[in-house]
Amino acid sequence: MSITSLLPVADVGACCAPLTRETLAAADAVSLARSLKALADPTRLRLISIVAASEGQEACACDLTAPVGLSQPTVSHHLKVLTDAGFLTRTQRGNWAHFALVPGALDSVARLLTSA
Amino acid sequence: MSITSLLPVADVGACCAPLTRETLAAADAVSLARSLKALADPTRLRLISIVAASEGQEACACDLTAPVGLSQPTVSHHLKVLTDAGFLTRTQRGNWAHFALVPGALDSVARLLTSA
Repeated sequence: MSITSLLPVADVGACCAPLTRETLAAADAVSLARSLKALADPTRLRLISIVAASEGQEACACDLTAPVGLSQPTVSHHLKVLTDAGFLTRTQRGNWAHFALVPGALDSVARLLTSA
Repeated sequence: MSITSLLPVADVGACCAPLTRETLAAADAVSLARSLKALADPTRLRLISIVAASEGQEACACDLTAPVGLSQPTVSHHLKVLTDAGFLTRTQRGNWAHFALVPGALDSVARLLTSA
């Protein structure tokens, strides 16, 4: 299952049983830890939450700096981490990048943590 | 809702709507990020998984070093992070500490990430 460490987060959930159901293989642990690390930041959690609450679960980067109260470069950095981890997609439209929630990506992580 | 930042993880899920349902308050984001950070390590994920697979979802620290292939002090450190974050409880029996899964703690985090 070591191939999962090379896949974006949305594919992780498809491969593995929940954490508490069977012992996690080393490679799967690395992959899940990487996804969790991308989420484990208050600003990034709020950015995901704001994008998710936006129309069509998509938001312009220009509308994301004010709500979190940080500079554009800092917000861009956080958005890049979330995009690289497979939680957001980025589309350029004119001068501004737009970020959309990847359907199922958060659910995949949640499914690995849940015991139900 | 800022009081949640002072509570152990098991209480977090009780207070907040899932991340994608409504915009996450700053204090709740700090609290959830702290829980995710405790989980965002391959060794800690494997330790939780091994404890969860043990009889009664409890394991002796003496049985946790070999499976993860790390020294006792390193494993102890990781177990302390998970205990401080509210994912495990620690009980001393004779020479050895025993660690048990806190029921519902992982589910609380999963519930905050899920959109369903």
